[in-house]
Amino acid sequence: MKSAIPKVTVQRLPVYLRCLESLPSGQRRVSSDDLATLAGVNAAKVRKDLSHLGSYGVRGVGYDVDKLKLQIGLELGLEQDWAVVIVGIGNLGRALANYAGFEERSFRIVGLFDADDQKVGQSLDGLTIEPMSRLPEVVAEQGARIGIVTTPAHAAQQVADLLADAGIRSILNFAPTVIKAPKGVDVRRVDLSTELQVLSFYLHRKG
Amino acid sequence: MKSAIPKVTVQRLPVYLRCLESLPSGQRRVSSDDLATLAGVNAAKVRKDLSHLGSYGVRGVGYDVDKLKLQIGLELGLEQDWAVVIVGIGNLGRALANYAGFEERSFRIVGLFDADDQKVGQSLDGLTIEPMSRLPEVVAEQGARIGIVTTPAHAAQQVADLLADAGIRSILNFAPTVIKAPKGVDVRRVDLSTELQVLSFYLHRKG
Repeated sequence: MKSAIPKVTVQRLPVYLRCLESLPSGQRRVSSDDLATLAGVNAAKVRKDLSHLGSYGVRGVGYDVDKLKLQIGLELGLEQDWAVVIVGIGNLGRALANYAGFEERSFRIVGLFDADDQKVGQSLDGLTIEPMSRLPEVVAEQGARIGIVTTPAHAAQQVADLLADAGIRSILNFAPTVIKAPKGVDVRRVDLSTELQVLSFYLHRKG
Repeated sequence: MKSAIPKVTVQRLPVYLRCLESLPSGQRRVSSDDLATLAGVNAAKVRKDLSHLGSYGVRGVGYDVDKLKLQIGLELGLEQDWAVVIVGIGNLGRALANYAGFEERSFRIVGLFDADDQKVGQSLDGLTIEPMSRLPEVVAEQGARIGIVTTPAHAAQQVADLLADAGIRSILNFAPTVIKAPKGVDVRRVDLSTELQVLSFYLHRKG
């Protein structure tokens, strides 16, 4: 039986996957040192993380790139197709609806919702923006399990509760506020200023 | 003399700051256990991370919330005002130009640039979209050090090189491609699908 994978390792798996995909096509092997450099962690951590997947490099040879991509993808559930709805179709909602990276990663946007009647009915990347009242129906029909919240802060909690009632089990919150997770639902918040703050740290240190 | 702060700690400082800000206003103390729960790490790690800042909680009392916010902000260089330019004013560029979270964090957007003549001259949140030819001038005038790249993938490397030539020292890349860092410039990539992949992991595990 496979043991539980630590949270911190789970966080790094998408990073390793992205690094593996950035290797020149045709490169069949990668060392833990090279992967560590690309991912910005140390090599011992890479080996430890990947050992949780039952993946071990061969000394002096490294890891098989294709096999490792496949293993990480399987672990992340990316062989499966995830249906996603987006609520709040402002600039960020539009940007995410068009984000090419999602489909590559098995995330299929199946519904766009907005509370603004002016936006309802508009077409975007092959989908029509629908009113909030249609949310439960679309989530059920499409078997959506993931919801992205890109509303203004004041609407985010109510929207999260509606998503949970509709059957959504995971919420990615881009609204600049903290959402209380409805029962049985995971909420992750994305704060777009986090990475800028990390940059700021290093600039600050350089003086 | 203060020792170097480990990279992984730097990554978590913005998370702690956000957690501290999510506490009810008026709460003056927080334990490492509570902060750990909010941040999704373990309490020993919180204490270790904060000790790098010279910040130690008092047993049974915890950390002083305001003092800790101040210390983290100082460490991240947030007492300083950072001038930021954005290149590529599609939906994501617009969303970031309007992102309220940036100004709260001392990041002031001072220039918006696009290669598309149709967009140049449009007004957005008090700024006018300018042609790429104006980039060096605006960066110099405003003392901008941080550049955000929200162009299509094929344009990202060229834009990064132009930013570096203009004097930008840190680049945040949202384009879905890997940028080779110009000399003397830090590049960080934001992959918006990373968090979705972490959600997918947990959904997949739940079955």
